[in-house]
Amino acid sequence: MAEQSTRIPFERLRDFVTQAMTRLGLPEGDAAIVGRLMAEAELQGSDGHGAIRLLPYARRIRAGGINLHPDIRIVQERPGMALLDGDNGMGQLVMHKAAQIAVEKARTCGVAWVGARFSNHAGPASLYARMPMAHDMIGMYFAVGNANHLPAWGGLDMLLSTNPIAVAVPAGDEPPVVLDMATTVAAYGKVKAKAQRGEQMPVGWMIDRLGQPLTDPKRSDEGFLLPIGGYKGYGLALIVGLLAGTLNGAAMGSEVIDFNHDDTSVTNTGQAVLAIDLSAFGDVGQFKARVDALVRELRASERMPDVERIWLPGEQSHEKRARNERDGIPLPPALLAQLDTFARDMGIPALRAS
Amino acid sequence: MAEQSTRIPFERLRDFVTQAMTRLGLPEGDAAIVGRLMAEAELQGSDGHGAIRLLPYARRIRAGGINLHPDIRIVQERPGMALLDGDNGMGQLVMHKAAQIAVEKARTCGVAWVGARFSNHAGPASLYARMPMAHDMIGMYFAVGNANHLPAWGGLDMLLSTNPIAVAVPAGDEPPVVLDMATTVAAYGKVKAKAQRGEQMPVGWMIDRLGQPLTDPKRSDEGFLLPIGGYKGYGLALIVGLLAGTLNGAAMGSEVIDFNHDDTSVTNTGQAVLAIDLSAFGDVGQFKARVDALVRELRASERMPDVERIWLPGEQSHEKRARNERDGIPLPPALLAQLDTFARDMGIPALRAS
Repeated sequence: MAEQSTRIPFERLRDFVTQAMTRLGLPEGDAAIVGRLMAEAELQGSDGHGAIRLLPYARRIRAGGINLHPDIRIVQERPGMALLDGDNGMGQLVMHKAAQIAVEKARTCGVAWVGARFSNHAGPASLYARMPMAHDMIGMYFAVGNANHLPAWGGLDMLLSTNPIAVAVPAGDEPPVVLDMATTVAAYGKVKAKAQRGEQMPVGWMIDRLGQPLTDPKRSDEGFLLPIGGYKGYGLALIVGLLAGTLNGAAMGSEVIDFNHDDTSVTNTGQAVLAIDLSAFGDVGQFKARVDALVRELRASERMPDVERIWLPGEQSHEKRARNERDGIPLPPALLAQLDTFARDMGIPALRAS
Repeated sequence: MAEQSTRIPFERLRDFVTQAMTRLGLPEGDAAIVGRLMAEAELQGSDGHGAIRLLPYARRIRAGGINLHPDIRIVQERPGMALLDGDNGMGQLVMHKAAQIAVEKARTCGVAWVGARFSNHAGPASLYARMPMAHDMIGMYFAVGNANHLPAWGGLDMLLSTNPIAVAVPAGDEPPVVLDMATTVAAYGKVKAKAQRGEQMPVGWMIDRLGQPLTDPKRSDEGFLLPIGGYKGYGLALIVGLLAGTLNGAAMGSEVIDFNHDDTSVTNTGQAVLAIDLSAFGDVGQFKARVDALVRELRASERMPDVERIWLPGEQSHEKRARNERDGIPLPPALLAQLDTFARDMGIPALRAS
């Protein structure tokens, strides 16, 4: 991929998205938050949730499916929790605020949970799980996906989404341990990225309605994603949906709007972020040293014959971030061509031009 | 299994374990809590975590590996969290107290997290995730397992345990949705139950150090459990260990004591329970009605050709509980014979005698 891709500096991509969002009608401050978070998604290698989402977002905004001036507000509150109504604003704005409130409340309560309803797609789960880390807190994030690609175990009706979980745990000298996983073998964003690159999917990502492997990502509408560990992944997807959706009064099951095929209906997306203040549990430095020791112990494991290296969750993303910060973010030709057309259409400078 | 098994009333099993625990030296009130929780594990069909554990517990207690008079106390506290030191008491006592504190704190804060260190094996995860439900709360439970059976992904050194997650979500007229899953394809308790019954394991539960399938549960020491979804399950096991172990200053990685082979070392087991008060998020009745609707929608799904019924997480356990309450708890002959010998040895009435 890297050979064909063009590397774009983080700041350039951030500003490009910010300009596009401003032109689409978002207030400048909000556009800047969305621009930064979408560029950060690319920075950490979440290519299914970065620049590739700009066009679908623009389509939904132009169709009137997003509230450009939302009143994102707390509708339920206790010392250790809040429930936000996102007022159908961009998901990045809702979850950015949710993470801020969770951190603030966790400072006092030790642990705090902030849920949201009437939010929208917000990008990669780890973006929000990572936010509390800057405050020496563990972050967790749960979300209802924006399209159902998963039936109940044994069923055919697609009533569940990939409903991701992310958890970010600060370390000391080592990179943080960051798990960001869909409850399916592959996230749907990865299917989209495969389609974008014209690649086939491996067997095991999706099956069709007859239970046969489906490997052409362009035919993804004809099948469904497979959950991890079979019925366990189904259970996990359901539980995440109950916590991030049903608990918040957000869409779950058949209420979920497929944002790939519907640009106007209010999605009522549900998400939740949890912050755990390390200092409530004891000395922060000692905790980080224990994480470092554990990370090193795992990394130094004896390895299976063909394995060159033991990776920790989030470590590959950490390395991508370092490289992309230095060399720029690699964007594939097809995506760049789309973004060029989009820039002309919007009357903003092309991504590569400046 | 049911044909060969003898069904023992819940109350009888509870009293038998309570008597055994009292005879082993636990104070009466503590013995009664352990007896009730171990019998409840059997009641819900968690046969890997019920009566089968009595003998190993007794062995550890007699060897001095358990503190019979622990000072289970809060060592760190904020309004929405507490960290317990279990003082090496029985895990059931520590987590019973942890769940009580979590419920109490969640009433005020909306959400509360209670972690524990110097605890011990406490039985099935769902036992503690279920406790907040009686107070119209969602419960979550995380634990570090008491023996490492899982290497890092690609590794050979067994540095991780099956580290289970349980989440219990109250419903209205429907059974609650209760997920209780090891982060491995099979829990180690299930391997033990297979060995007890003289059955083989299916391919996919364990592999040996050469990566070959291991199906004889009596050879389980020679291999390791497979994580769900490959590297995802490895990541999940690690994260659960960080939350339930490292965060609490409890054992993780190589610090974990294998309680199958070591009866005396302090295990410093780590666990955590989270309670989420439904009333903090809105009307409890409305929430339960939404869960009911979702459950019914999933159950009514169109099914794959060979599937007779769509199950919800915890539904099979719910049905087992109802049947076992009515007909008694089925215990296999080999286990009953062991318990008979144990009863004679302890000088208490046999389980079947009264």
